Amino acid sequence: MYSTRIYYQDTDAGGVVYYANYLKFFEKSWFEYLISIGISLPEWESLGTYVIIKQVYLDLIEPLRYGDYVTITSDIIEVKRAYFVLSHAATKDTTVTTRCTTQIVCIDKNGKPKRIPDDFRNRLIQHAKKG
Amino acid sequence: MYSTRIYYQDTDAGGVVYYANYLKFFEKSWFEYLISIGISLPEWESLGTYVIIKQVYLDLIEPLRYGDYVTITSDIIEVKRAYFVLSHAATKDTTVTTRCTTQIVCIDKNGKPKRIPDDFRNRLIQHAKKG
Amino acid sequence: MYSTRIYYQDTDAGGVVYYANYLKFFEKSWFEYLISIGISLPEWESLGTYVIIKQVYLDLIEPLRYGDYVTITSDIIEVKRAYFVLSHAATKDTTVTTRCTTQIVCIDKNGKPKRIPDDFRNRLIQHAKKG
Amino acid sequence: MYSTRIYYQDTDAGGVVYYANYLKFFEKSWFEYLISIGISLPEWESLGTYVIIKQVYLDLIEPLRYGDYVTITSDIIEVKRAYFVLSHAATKDTTVTTRCTTQIVCIDKNGKPKRIPDDFRNRLIQHAKKG
Repeated sequence: MYSTRIYYQDTDAGGVVYYANYLKFFEKSWFEYLISIGISLPEWESLGTYVIIKQVYLDLIEPLRYGDYVTITSDIIEVKRAYFVLSHAATKDTTVTTRCTTQIVCIDKNGKPKRIPDDFRNRLIQHAKKG
Repeated sequence: MYSTRIYYQDTDAGGVVYYANYLKFFEKSWFEYLISIGISLPEWESLGTYVIIKQVYLDLIEPLRYGDYVTITSDIIEVKRAYFVLSHAATKDTTVTTRCTTQIVCIDKNGKPKRIPDDFRNRLIQHAKKG
Repeated sequence: MYSTRIYYQDTDAGGVVYYANYLKFFEKSWFEYLISIGISLPEWESLGTYVIIKQVYLDLIEPLRYGDYVTITSDIIEVKRAYFVLSHAATKDTTVTTRCTTQIVCIDKNGKPKRIPDDFRNRLIQHAKKG
Repeated sequence: MYSTRIYYQDTDAGGVVYYANYLKFFEKSWFEYLISIGISLPEWESLGTYVIIKQVYLDLIEPLRYGDYVTITSDIIEVKRAYFVLSHAATKDTTVTTRCTTQIVCIDKNGKPKRIPDDFRNRLIQHAKKG
């Protein structure tokens, strides 16, 4: 989970959050969410396990504006051998303004996909949202 | 179409282009593509017709690195009354490294969806990729 | 004041925070600092008072890396009729890693410089750092 | 030298280019300028010579807006043993809208300042702007 105000840097001349910047909010949300369940991505990197984004689906429902306050939540919706899928929602007051799904692949330091290490994977499975 | 080198600003500490930055390449590509078929988005704005992104699907196939040279092409794949869909591909040498689809909705200055103006829409239809 | 972790989005392929991204940290810091002394920039905008950055001086002392945790503080160091100057410092543990000074000018909705409104200006003066 | 249109991604809700984004234009300008005088930064990296930004001075003279077309030029104004200084100007039509000075330090792969290699340095000196 990650909460932030909308600053000028997030917006564009249309007066709303620029579409690419939502992906930055979601990175912060999943980073903090994974920390909260005991998965520190920088620590895993120091052990040779990296993650990269493979696929993204983004749905912009309501625009967000300068000064708005938004909360982003992330859920684990799928865990496979070498990748996992997260869904994210950006909520203003009680309205979901944006939804996103990201497929995240585990790679080694040469960029090759690899099996998610057991401790990492078990934590994902343990906190995965029940379908 | 839009070609660019990959600069530090496009990359992250993983040594590759940061996933959100692809969406910036695609904005430049569709802006320039629309100009090339006679649709200037800033001119349409001055006439009260704006566009916003509604949905994005992004597929990251191969990473791009600092110093790479990439060409992005955009195609019109669907034209409806109030929205149109573009597909984009980022190509390095002859390899497609990234694909993206963006649904773009036409709005008025209050943010309400509206019919794409005839001249704008006709140009889209005329250049739409045949299925 | 604003604290943040360093995420991938903040870094570049050199493994450190990309230089332009410091200016984004400083915007968040001054926005939150001004809120804390009773100056809401979005509220002032709704009353027709805008601010723009006129000059920036940035000194990068120590690099910051993915996963670092940094705190940014802002101080008011000068208040004039139509502009004010803030200084910012990004601190990791007890080390100042970056310093910045920003001259911020008050403008009307047409972009013309204007006198800082009294309530806005008095709050700045009241909290200005004594030389 | 680097020319670009101003896209939504460059702007903020104030309707003008966001101040940090100028630094991205300047990176592109110096990268391309250095290429034009035979200095490829990615190639020097592969040989163990990196550069980082140490100091930036930015002067925002006139705002730039969505759809504007801007040309950025870079000049070498100082060359020392371990660093060099570039000045940059962003010009719209014939008006200089932004000026910037960047001090760039040569480092090794561990981030330690080092002497600029002879071939790199000689090219800088040869193209330095005469005071």
